[in-house]
Amino acid sequence: MNNQSPIVVLDSGLGGLTVVHSLREHLPAEDIIYFGDTARLPYGSKTPEVVTTFVAQIIRYLLPLDPKHVVVACNTATALALPDIRAEFPALSISGVIEPGAQAALDAAGTRPDPLIGVIATEATVRSQAYEKAIRRRRPEARLLLQAAPLLVPIIEDGRLDTDPLVQLALTQYLTPLTERAIDVLVLGCTHYPILRRLIEKMVGPKVSVVDSANQCARDVARRLETANLAKTPSGPTLANAHGGLGTGSLRCWVTDDSPKFARLASRFLGYEISNPLWVSPDELPTSSPVDALRRAV
Amino acid sequence: MNNQSPIVVLDSGLGGLTVVHSLREHLPAEDIIYFGDTARLPYGSKTPEVVTTFVAQIIRYLLPLDPKHVVVACNTATALALPDIRAEFPALSISGVIEPGAQAALDAAGTRPDPLIGVIATEATVRSQAYEKAIRRRRPEARLLLQAAPLLVPIIEDGRLDTDPLVQLALTQYLTPLTERAIDVLVLGCTHYPILRRLIEKMVGPKVSVVDSANQCARDVARRLETANLAKTPSGPTLANAHGGLGTGSLRCWVTDDSPKFARLASRFLGYEISNPLWVSPDELPTSSPVDALRRAV
Repeated sequence: MNNQSPIVVLDSGLGGLTVVHSLREHLPAEDIIYFGDTARLPYGSKTPEVVTTFVAQIIRYLLPLDPKHVVVACNTATALALPDIRAEFPALSISGVIEPGAQAALDAAGTRPDPLIGVIATEATVRSQAYEKAIRRRRPEARLLLQAAPLLVPIIEDGRLDTDPLVQLALTQYLTPLTERAIDVLVLGCTHYPILRRLIEKMVGPKVSVVDSANQCARDVARRLETANLAKTPSGPTLANAHGGLGTGSLRCWVTDDSPKFARLASRFLGYEISNPLWVSPDELPTSSPVDALRRAV
Repeated sequence: MNNQSPIVVLDSGLGGLTVVHSLREHLPAEDIIYFGDTARLPYGSKTPEVVTTFVAQIIRYLLPLDPKHVVVACNTATALALPDIRAEFPALSISGVIEPGAQAALDAAGTRPDPLIGVIATEATVRSQAYEKAIRRRRPEARLLLQAAPLLVPIIEDGRLDTDPLVQLALTQYLTPLTERAIDVLVLGCTHYPILRRLIEKMVGPKVSVVDSANQCARDVARRLETANLAKTPSGPTLANAHGGLGTGSLRCWVTDDSPKFARLASRFLGYEISNPLWVSPDELPTSSPVDALRRAV
């Protein structure tokens, strides 16, 4: 790989586009390949074995693109699969969104002596305890409240807006146990949730800092590329590019299902329109072991 | 195959167990293999190409069991995949749940001159127009109102109960457009929905007949087995079997993810407890073309 190689960003569906949005701001010249596994979403109700299998299939499929960096832009996949994925692809530079999210939470908590940090996330992310570990490693005295919010991803992927009473009721059910305990910081522990940020901020009130991992994640990626001398020098000023996005870098999206629906909803996350992504059939994704595949085939 | 061969029932998750429940009543001696594709659920927001791919993979995987009949116990999979699946496996006896659902709707409509039939179903089932075609072929003058209810499957797979305000709000949103138009019959066009039948019946009121396809589907399967001389003679009276279910036949469940969660929620559908299903990794499911798999592997 070299500094012209793309950054790969992967997610179960649309949520990782919030990370793409931040990457664009910090690294406007980079070419980005986005992969949304829409055929098999949501990931958040599934187990570590299955999510790791899916992420490994996707990375294996994208390896020929020779990415300079891979961002697992999905909290569930980061929480459940990142260590195994790093072990399986030792030559790849890979980062996730949990460590940046934990750092953003503590930055927001500031110098409070024992901040109470609330986290909403998928069932699988909560069960993994990845946020506890990442936050306690940085500040052992931080107090934590975790709330699984399993229906938010289906609700967001359904395209529902802030004004929908069902969105409001779901958020009330998930946020009340946190606001009752007077949290100081709320971490949006899933890359889908920032799409509902305005409503969430309104519901938790002005005393609670609402943070997500996208911005911190993008800064981390920028620093990694600088350190590895792999950053692409911007070839011009940071202007809207051909796709309406910031910068001179390209964005190409691939999905495993329903490319038109993805394109229709993507603008809510990116702030501009994209054309239909390429479709990759789930049948095309290479399974774990070529030997097993060979055995099955003959 | 012979009359000792099993019946295969497949679904994206738990919903097909409502069909198993009816099969048990009509065919208490039959052995049933249930396959829930929990790693890739829900199917209802996905496209024909992807759902057909998934169903074909599952059937290919189960073929060595030499099933006497395959029930596609998922309305989405029936609507999107059944013709292609029949073409791909011409030697297999396969039935779905849409034709039985349409028949049940017209049985409930009785002799009314121009019955207004409401259907709630997944987005994919509604878009397929499979219910329109199946009902209009039987009674061209029937009037139809179709309502997509994309969040009901995630809500049910989340294990939420009738008493949950979010369940009530979602049903109100989906049913109001139908009840406002004074439907005569409401078809539960997804095998998950019967789990909410009591609440749905309460909300639509006593003038609306609520029907699902499970019972009619089971009667169809019984008739097919009789005709093909493949029915298993009951080996004893219809009593609770070792698993607490009716009859002498066995029920074995296989899932692609989270076997304990499946077992925990299954009793709501079956009325009795089951032990943890077998887990089949999605990586183990054979992809469409052995030739392609071979090419990838070498």
